[in-house]
Amino acid sequence: MLSIDDLDTPAILIDVDRAEANIARAQAHADRHGLKLRPHIKTHKLPYWAKKQIAAGAVGITCQKIGEAEVMADAGLTDIFLPYNILGRAKLERLKALHGRVTVSVTSDSMETLAGLAATFTDPGQPLQVLVECDTGMGRCGVQSASEAVALAREIDKARGLAFGGLMTYPAAGRAAEAEAWLADARQALAASGLACQRISSGGTPDMWRASEASVVTEYRPGTYIYLDRYQVAKGVGSLDDCALTVLSTVVSHPTSTRAILDAGSKALSSDTLGLPDFGELLGVPGATVTGLSEEHGNVTLSGDAKLRIGERVRIVPDHCCVVSNLFDEVHLIAGERVLETLPVAARGRMG
Amino acid sequence: MLSIDDLDTPAILIDVDRAEANIARAQAHADRHGLKLRPHIKTHKLPYWAKKQIAAGAVGITCQKIGEAEVMADAGLTDIFLPYNILGRAKLERLKALHGRVTVSVTSDSMETLAGLAATFTDPGQPLQVLVECDTGMGRCGVQSASEAVALAREIDKARGLAFGGLMTYPAAGRAAEAEAWLADARQALAASGLACQRISSGGTPDMWRASEASVVTEYRPGTYIYLDRYQVAKGVGSLDDCALTVLSTVVSHPTSTRAILDAGSKALSSDTLGLPDFGELLGVPGATVTGLSEEHGNVTLSGDAKLRIGERVRIVPDHCCVVSNLFDEVHLIAGERVLETLPVAARGRMG
Repeated sequence: MLSIDDLDTPAILIDVDRAEANIARAQAHADRHGLKLRPHIKTHKLPYWAKKQIAAGAVGITCQKIGEAEVMADAGLTDIFLPYNILGRAKLERLKALHGRVTVSVTSDSMETLAGLAATFTDPGQPLQVLVECDTGMGRCGVQSASEAVALAREIDKARGLAFGGLMTYPAAGRAAEAEAWLADARQALAASGLACQRISSGGTPDMWRASEASVVTEYRPGTYIYLDRYQVAKGVGSLDDCALTVLSTVVSHPTSTRAILDAGSKALSSDTLGLPDFGELLGVPGATVTGLSEEHGNVTLSGDAKLRIGERVRIVPDHCCVVSNLFDEVHLIAGERVLETLPVAARGRMG
Repeated sequence: MLSIDDLDTPAILIDVDRAEANIARAQAHADRHGLKLRPHIKTHKLPYWAKKQIAAGAVGITCQKIGEAEVMADAGLTDIFLPYNILGRAKLERLKALHGRVTVSVTSDSMETLAGLAATFTDPGQPLQVLVECDTGMGRCGVQSASEAVALAREIDKARGLAFGGLMTYPAAGRAAEAEAWLADARQALAASGLACQRISSGGTPDMWRASEASVVTEYRPGTYIYLDRYQVAKGVGSLDDCALTVLSTVVSHPTSTRAILDAGSKALSSDTLGLPDFGELLGVPGATVTGLSEEHGNVTLSGDAKLRIGERVRIVPDHCCVVSNLFDEVHLIAGERVLETLPVAARGRMG
C-alpha cells in the first residue's frame, strides 16, 4: 500500500478517521437538537463524502452550482438543495432536467428570479420547491424584510409549477441570534398571510454548535465541519487535531535561518485567509507559520526553536479548507501514514 | 458563430486583439533594448498563447512547474525555463525525461538542490543548464550574497552533467535598481572566479518597462503583460482598455439600491487582490466595484449613478489575472462580441 512518502507534493491529504468523527459529531448534535442536517458539499466536492454524510443521517445535500448538483446526482445523491438564484435560459433548462431525476429545491430573493422559475416549471404535479432567501444580517443576497418575504412567498404559491418551500438564510458570522429573530418574525408574517413555513434553513459551521431546541431553524447546511481548518479552530469549533485536511508540501529553499520556502503557494493554499493574519500552520513544527504566499511559493517564518531542512516534507493546515479543495484535481484519503485511496475532486471548478 | 451572449456565466473572455497587441508591444520593447523575452506562461497556461509569444520573437518560455512544462513540450514548445528548485526523486525523473526531448534550464539556490540535480544529470554530452537564483530584495528564494552565488556556480561548474547557466532573480516590485546592482556585483565576483555569466534573467511585468540598454539583465520573464489586470493598470503598465482578460458574470440579486450580487465569487475571481482595496471593476458601469467576495458570490457596491438590473450580464476586470486563469477549465477567445474559439486551460492546476 502507498504511504504519504510516496506522494509527490503539493498534495491534499484527508484523514478519514477525523473526517468521519467530524461527520458523526455534527450529526449527533443535530439529532440531539431535532435539527435536520443538509451538508454543503462545497467543502469536499466529493460524492464519496456526500454519501457518507447521507449514511450518517443527513436529509440531503446542499450544492451551490448546478454543475455540482449534476455531479452529485450522477453519483446517486437524490435530494439536493441549491440555495441560489438560478437565472438565464441555459441554467433553467439544466435545473429542469435535474428536477426530472432527483428532488431539487432552490431559493429566490426577487420577482425576476421567480419569473424565470415560473416560466420554466409549469407542472403542478411535480412542483419545484422554492425557498425565499432572507438577508438576516450577512449583507449578501436576500430579501430585506419580512413583508418582502411574504410578497415573494405569495408569488411562489400562485405559480402553478412552483411550491413555497420555506425560508433560507446564511447568517452573519456570530450573529445567529439576530438571524433567529428575523426568521421568527418572517414566519409569523407568513402565518398571518396563511402561508405555512415548514422548512427554515440556516448555515455556517461555527454557529451550528450554538443552535438550540428553541430555534425556528429546522434544517442546517454546514460545510466546513467535515474537514475543519484554522479559521474553525480560531472560532473554537475544534482543535488542530480535528482538522482532516492538510496540504503535503516540500521545503524547496531555506535562504536564511528564519525563512524557509515551501512548494505550496496561493495556487495550493489560496489567498483566502478568512481574516486570519497568516496563511497556514505547519503540523509538528511549532513556531513555523506560513506568513506569505506567491503563486507557487509559501514563505515560512521560523521563530524560536523551529527548524526545517531543504527537502523535508511538511503538512500544512490551511486557513480555509473549502477553497483549497477547489484548487486540486485529486485528494488522497489517508489513515495515519497510509494512503487508502486517491479520488478525483469530481465537483471541482464547476462554474455554472 | 457564437456570441458572448450565448455563453453561460461565469466565464473567462480573452480579447484576442488586445492580447496580441500586448505581446507585440512587449516584444518591441525588448527588441529595442536588446533584451531576450522569455514569457512566463503562468498567466495564460495555454499552448495557444505560448506559440504566439514565440512567433512574435520570444526565445523560449518560462514555466513554474514540471507539469506545466510537460504540457507545453507536448504542444511543441522547445525551450523551457523552470526557475524553481526541483527536489525529490519523482520530480527529478520527470525533469530528466523532459530534458531528453526539449531544451530545459532550471535554477538552484542551495547545495541540497544541486546534489539532487548532479546525481540525476550525469551526461557531459547533454548537460542541464542550471542558473543560480539570487534574492535581490524580494525575500523569497535565492542566495543572499554574491559569494554564495559564486560558491554555487562553482559546484554547478564542477558537476559533470550540469552547466552553469547564469543568474536568475525575481526582483522586489519597484526595486529593479537594487536588483540591478546586486546582479552586477555577482557577475563581477563570478568573473573574478573565472566563471562567465552569459545569461542573467529577471522578471515581473511592471519593471520590464523600466529596463534600459545599460542593464546587466539579458533576458526577461514577464507573465501578466499578455493580459494585464487592475494591478498592472494601477502600476501604470496600461489602461483598462488594454486588459485582455475579463470575467463574464450575471447579476443574480439586487437586495438594496446600492448592493448587487454577481455569480462570480472567489472561486472565479480569487481572493488575491495584490494589495488593491477591492476585487474587480465592472466594464462600462462606472461607480460599480466588487467590494466583497464569498466563494460563489461577488458583492458589488454601486455609487453615484451606477445601475444594474437582475439578469444583466457584466464583464469584470480582475485584480490579478494569472490566478483567475488557474480557476477555470476553459477560456473563450473573443473579437468584439464574437466568440472565436473555446480552449481548455491545458496547463491549469498542475501542482507538481
